[in-house]
Amino acid sequence: MMTAQATRDHILEEATRLFVAEGYVGLSMRQLAERVGVSKAGLYYHFKDKESLFLAILTENLLEIEKIIQQARAAGSSTQDTIERIFRGIFARAPEQQAIIRLASQEAGRLRPEARQAFRQLYHEKFLLQIRDILQEGIDAGELRAMDAGQAVWILLGMMYPYFYPSHRAEMGDPQAALAMMITIFFEGANAPVHSPHENGKADPC
Amino acid sequence: MMTAQATRDHILEEATRLFVAEGYVGLSMRQLAERVGVSKAGLYYHFKDKESLFLAILTENLLEIEKIIQQARAAGSSTQDTIERIFRGIFARAPEQQAIIRLASQEAGRLRPEARQAFRQLYHEKFLLQIRDILQEGIDAGELRAMDAGQAVWILLGMMYPYFYPSHRAEMGDPQAALAMMITIFFEGANAPVHSPHENGKADPC
Repeated sequence: MMTAQATRDHILEEATRLFVAEGYVGLSMRQLAERVGVSKAGLYYHFKDKESLFLAILTENLLEIEKIIQQARAAGSSTQDTIERIFRGIFARAPEQQAIIRLASQEAGRLRPEARQAFRQLYHEKFLLQIRDILQEGIDAGELRAMDAGQAVWILLGMMYPYFYPSHRAEMGDPQAALAMMITIFFEGANAPVHSPHENGKADPC
Repeated sequence: MMTAQATRDHILEEATRLFVAEGYVGLSMRQLAERVGVSKAGLYYHFKDKESLFLAILTENLLEIEKIIQQARAAGSSTQDTIERIFRGIFARAPEQQAIIRLASQEAGRLRPEARQAFRQLYHEKFLLQIRDILQEGIDAGELRAMDAGQAVWILLGMMYPYFYPSHRAEMGDPQAALAMMITIFFEGANAPVHSPHENGKADPC
């Protein structure tokens, strides 16, 4: 017999897989209990409703990402190195864990206002603002061009999003190669000095 | 009284708004008829089921995007200029039309295999492969660094994806400024010559 904590972890893990595969709306607590393999009473013992369960998954996921970010900030030798560590950390997680990041953006609108507000705040605090701070520090240190760090966050993270669809990830090529390309494009693009006219007349970063 | 074509267009427009606001799963044909303001018979006259209606929306949207791409290819003076025209064309569309691009990625998995296959083929043909060809031509012409054009497509388009969420677009800042930043980052990043050691020892694109 599993301990309460083990049961809770098992529910979270299986429910993550089901939400990713079938979306948030399509699943009921009855189906979740059945397919996770616990009694309905057991499910309700741990989570009072589907929203609480989903919020718990999102929260655990964000706390894991926060850990990745903190470790990267401690170890990173430059803005680029720190961001690369974060990307590698996120890409090293199970595809379902990555898909949850996307599902969070998609489904947050379905939560009740209070839960949505709580989740958005956590998402900002643990994830977006962390990345923004890293980019802002890079801008302040002259490692990155002057730009709106808040917008740069979305551009940087957007590049990862297509890889958070397990359903079509297979046709997208090696994620590690893609990750290296993202880092190169973002940082060569964001590092480049302001345009100056070049002898051949072509706009050229050098 | 509307003509059949006008009714069809009206259904497509209203249903687009509803799918974007509430997702694909949450809506039934009965609700769609009610909220679009046509009889159920009228709705079924034009679309045999919810899947056909959704597929018609996706298809019309892709055909519009194909037009934007064709015009950009005809008018573009360089790879960067062509891509910038495409991005501007997509960003100039109504937010619901942009959100449909995202919804397509999200919900394609819910369609029946045959419809999914048809849609994926159209999505590749009219959109992804078009952009890949433009990038590949840029690579072949030496305008862009040597890279896997198929992966570069996802990185380029990924940068736009966060802006396809009407629900949190408001907090993301001016989309036009973001678009300019995407183009700069992608093309300065993708244009940059291969790294060479620089006198100050720092990896520098110049």
